[in-house]
Amino acid sequence: MSFCVIILSLRMGGILVKNLIVGQSGGPTSVINGSLAGVYAEAKKCGFDKVYGMVNGIEGLLLDRIVDLDDYLGEKENLELLKRTPSSFLGTCRFKLGKMEEHEDLYEKVFEILDKHSIDSFIYIGGNDSMDTVESLSDYALLHNKKQNFIGVPKTIDNDLPVTDHCPGFGSACKYIATTMKEIIADNMCYGDTKQTVAIVEIMGRHAGWLTAAAALAKDDNCCGVDAIYLPEVAFDVDTFVQDVEDLLKKKSNIVIAVSEGIKTADGDYVCELLDTNLMTDSFGHKELVGCAEALGRILRDKLGIKTRPVTLSILQRAGAHLASKRDLDEAIKCGNLGASLAFKGETGKMVVMRRISDEPYKIKFEVFDDIHKIANVEKKIPLEWIDVDNNYVSDELIGYIRPLIQGDVKQIYKDGLPQYLVMK
Amino acid sequence: MSFCVIILSLRMGGILVKNLIVGQSGGPTSVINGSLAGVYAEAKKCGFDKVYGMVNGIEGLLLDRIVDLDDYLGEKENLELLKRTPSSFLGTCRFKLGKMEEHEDLYEKVFEILDKHSIDSFIYIGGNDSMDTVESLSDYALLHNKKQNFIGVPKTIDNDLPVTDHCPGFGSACKYIATTMKEIIADNMCYGDTKQTVAIVEIMGRHAGWLTAAAALAKDDNCCGVDAIYLPEVAFDVDTFVQDVEDLLKKKSNIVIAVSEGIKTADGDYVCELLDTNLMTDSFGHKELVGCAEALGRILRDKLGIKTRPVTLSILQRAGAHLASKRDLDEAIKCGNLGASLAFKGETGKMVVMRRISDEPYKIKFEVFDDIHKIANVEKKIPLEWIDVDNNYVSDELIGYIRPLIQGDVKQIYKDGLPQYLVMK
Repeated sequence: MSFCVIILSLRMGGILVKNLIVGQSGGPTSVINGSLAGVYAEAKKCGFDKVYGMVNGIEGLLLDRIVDLDDYLGEKENLELLKRTPSSFLGTCRFKLGKMEEHEDLYEKVFEILDKHSIDSFIYIGGNDSMDTVESLSDYALLHNKKQNFIGVPKTIDNDLPVTDHCPGFGSACKYIATTMKEIIADNMCYGDTKQTVAIVEIMGRHAGWLTAAAALAKDDNCCGVDAIYLPEVAFDVDTFVQDVEDLLKKKSNIVIAVSEGIKTADGDYVCELLDTNLMTDSFGHKELVGCAEALGRILRDKLGIKTRPVTLSILQRAGAHLASKRDLDEAIKCGNLGASLAFKGETGKMVVMRRISDEPYKIKFEVFDDIHKIANVEKKIPLEWIDVDNNYVSDELIGYIRPLIQGDVKQIYKDGLPQYLVMK
Repeated sequence: MSFCVIILSLRMGGILVKNLIVGQSGGPTSVINGSLAGVYAEAKKCGFDKVYGMVNGIEGLLLDRIVDLDDYLGEKENLELLKRTPSSFLGTCRFKLGKMEEHEDLYEKVFEILDKHSIDSFIYIGGNDSMDTVESLSDYALLHNKKQNFIGVPKTIDNDLPVTDHCPGFGSACKYIATTMKEIIADNMCYGDTKQTVAIVEIMGRHAGWLTAAAALAKDDNCCGVDAIYLPEVAFDVDTFVQDVEDLLKKKSNIVIAVSEGIKTADGDYVCELLDTNLMTDSFGHKELVGCAEALGRILRDKLGIKTRPVTLSILQRAGAHLASKRDLDEAIKCGNLGASLAFKGETGKMVVMRRISDEPYKIKFEVFDDIHKIANVEKKIPLEWIDVDNNYVSDELIGYIRPLIQGDVKQIYKDGLPQYLVMK
């Protein structure tokens, strides 16, 4: 008899009633709702009575904006829809509580609302900043003898959370990027050697280049792959870049380059800040930067006299749930499951992590990391040995690390030609 | 016994040997290779002996760059891969032959190469400019007693070809746009009323707004839809636009706007040309315009002091074969089939068209349009009665016209997590 079943039996006897609240925080991913579905399903199975959702994370909780998830997820069909829904079903926020000694009022308000709804456990699905919230609330609760416990479930397309092998959300964004990159490369070759074409594709990731590295996965039997990859982990040198492109154009007419939005020079300047002409000031006095792909295009036009096509994947790469990786979704659900069972056990200040046992065959273990202090606000970057010596491509090890994460496709639920979602009414 | 079978029988008796060449021209679509597959399959069935492909359209043909399609499409598996391959398998071009009286040398060169390979029939899969090529070559052949015949198979994401109800390629681009728009809308709502978010999505179509109109399809039971749509068919007024956005923001915090890249003011200026600060000159003296979504974002920041997120769908909307519409692909194949059988019958100067019998149930007839002069270089725009009186949305009739075209999804052939294509080696 499993732990959950024992607890459920106790509950049925009227001994124990526990309620849970779950929230989503930070930028959405294609599978963040998979984790929500995983939390809900397991929480119900464990024996939580009410499973509440925070509307817009901790920011909404402070306004007492909560929903009873039974109202939405009671039917199995809805749970399946939720797993396929992009963005954050509950809404999200980028709110930080700040230091407890400076914002005790906010902390007290959180516990007041949790108490008001008899909530025992709190799960936050999010990235670095969200784990900071889990850490702070857990510490506060221990310090002030509050009954609630706090668990983190990892989520981020950026894959920059430490300790865990990778983050749910990363694999689907990689699948989106690799698929789209194959399409861009095919399209970019359509004129063959009758026309020189240079596409520069800008990919998310301000400090960590994991997503941009995923562009390398496009290369296979029927795709020549991207020609160069520039990552924020290493200094970007404009002259070397121009030389790289010039060399490439001697060998082929159609080239595709992947760049991280966050590439910087050795002096620490973002590439988009390099050119005066790229800085614009409006009547409010705001400066605005053009994107990095656009800036690099202008540099190439200026230095080599060639035209380029900048493509910015923008929010499509994190919202493209129709291209979610089945493996990523399954893992997101399991992380949610484990989060709920940890919450039910009363664990606190911990985060669900994944540990990779092997690449081929791909094997992963779902574990608990005890000390969230070592996760919150720490960014995991690509190890330098996974970036090639010329700083313009990635190693086979890095490709081998990402490849398993994009496997499998999620069958969408279509109506009238379009994927269907679950939304709050 | 069908016409094709009779002819095949004659051929088997050694009476008749005919060869065909097929080319692709203009911008690619997600299903232009579906038409190529359709031409090949039917041409073989009809009894053409050799089916050649022009590499990079007429431009490649003039350089005698042709391939024997048996080398690539002999196996059924490859034909299935071809149908799912984005971009133009044979490569494309944007080459116009010009007037025959001024470029007789070019015309003669075309026929010299066709004769060299004993080619009897010529099929060109393309849009307006490509139909101009079909028209010119057909006219020249008739005038100079050349034996070859010329047939056009329609293709364009822009849907701006006249006579035909719609163009193969349009439905898949619409499905891409509507799906992506649902995802963008969901993502854009993730902060709810805790944060004002305005996304401006730029969609292809310089003169005709068909693709931008497809953004309206995003609205369904689980998506509130885009809040405004601006099309190139009607004059764009900046003050009205700013007022529209201001009014929308009074009602809701998160708005998404679809704009055609080609919107112009009543004076005929492209929106991206409106602001001096948007014009940039590099050291070569080239002027470059920022995109229309970016320009509108700057206008809103300037007038209302709000930030916006510009998203440009760029080539993704025409290359996104993983989101192809099954109906569109089937129709593209059938257009190719009919093109091949017309070619075999010796018809010339004609284009395959589709005539819609009804919206619900959706019924279409594949027909032949006799006079390609009425198609070449003529642009079909959205009828003004399908644009709402405020010029910022589209009518239900227009939505009802597009909706049937995005139905059904094409099952991709995956390997290692990514869709597989057929490519020329």
